[in-house]
Amino acid sequence: CPRDPRLRPSVFLDLEATGLPSVDPKIAEISPFAVHRSSLENPKRDESDAPVLPQVPDELTLCRSPERPSTAKASEITGLSSEGLARCPKAGFDGAVVQTPQAFLSCQEGPLCLVAHNGFDYDFPLLCTELPGYAAGAAGPGPCPQPWHPGPGRQGLQPGQPLPPLRPGGAEGHVHSRLMVFLHRAAELLAWADEHALSWARVEPMYVPPDGPSLKA
Amino acid sequence: CPRDPRLRPSVFLDLEATGLPSVDPKIAEISPFAVHRSSLENPKRDESDAPVLPQVPDELTLCRSPERPSTAKASEITGLSSEGLARCPKAGFDGAVVQTPQAFLSCQEGPLCLVAHNGFDYDFPLLCTELPGYAAGAAGPGPCPQPWHPGPGRQGLQPGQPLPPLRPGGAEGHVHSRLMVFLHRAAELLAWADEHALSWARVEPMYVPPDGPSLKA
Repeated sequence: CPRDPRLRPSVFLDLEATGLPSVDPKIAEISPFAVHRSSLENPKRDESDAPVLPQVPDELTLCRSPERPSTAKASEITGLSSEGLARCPKAGFDGAVVQTPQAFLSCQEGPLCLVAHNGFDYDFPLLCTELPGYAAGAAGPGPCPQPWHPGPGRQGLQPGQPLPPLRPGGAEGHVHSRLMVFLHRAAELLAWADEHALSWARVEPMYVPPDGPSLKA
Repeated sequence: CPRDPRLRPSVFLDLEATGLPSVDPKIAEISPFAVHRSSLENPKRDESDAPVLPQVPDELTLCRSPERPSTAKASEITGLSSEGLARCPKAGFDGAVVQTPQAFLSCQEGPLCLVAHNGFDYDFPLLCTELPGYAAGAAGPGPCPQPWHPGPGRQGLQPGQPLPPLRPGGAEGHVHSRLMVFLHRAAELLAWADEHALSWARVEPMYVPPDGPSLKA
């Protein structure tokens, strides 16, 4: 399995954070969902022939109170309000918490392909800032943008187009919705992803946190 | 929050494994679901006043190919067949994989209360065998049996009674179903849990793996 790249797991990832890159956002929720490539290539289907979510996935959702409040716009997008998080107080996304997603990603048999909507402009740089240890140590093809909507006619795939409105459910719900979109055109989208995946070395951290330079800085 | 025991998180846990204690089973799937005590005491409710799953949970599901095959009975209970896992090959629940649930449990602000159906007879001893590092280092009230069905009349709670048939969905589905059952009688069940929670020191490993004694052995 680790020797056959076609069998390598893909990790669909969503982050919810406190704002746009200009405000040096902090992660509030991280939700990686690891599936085997074989589950993407030959998705199981229900009675109506629609693909269903892969079986035996590995899945993590961690929600943390960021040290700084979310911007109003971010709360609107993520559905996570500072008030809601304050009712269930949690530590920030600090050193101890970071070990969980890092261990989760590291225990998948590599090389991993990370897939995130708007990944190169948002999720991957922020992951580099907040999980510097993982990004620095990751091998293989690394992150890949999420190609969402195949374009009309024969024009091919149009990555980055807006998705239909997401089901509620925070990062976990977003990942599930997006994976379902992916499964409907899995063969084309896998080929597209194989072509557009880049190495982690090409991803710059979004910003350098004030409490110390990231490992990649 | 760590100072107020009423705010400490509770972790609802389900394990799927390869068989009964007599066959020295291996974990095939582990699914801890951490919720704040406040979410249990005052669950959100939908329009029909039924409790809904807590918001901002931390959730993990890891599914692994055990080194030994499942017994037929175990496959029937867990819904995980060796064949199904073989189609999506994964490493066993080894040293690298163990770090993820260990980090997940350790990053919850303690003291944690672990809750599992049949926990003292199955899940906790097996956790002691397979995650010896966590069990040995855990502080606080530790594991607690899952009190499922409040008994009839005024006879109080009857832990360990069989649950209604579970929704499919492996360990994650089981945890969700059981948490929903819990939420319907949360106040009583929390009081029961507080009284019956024991220390990890009271839990013996289910067995000592042949590749080395567990830390608690």
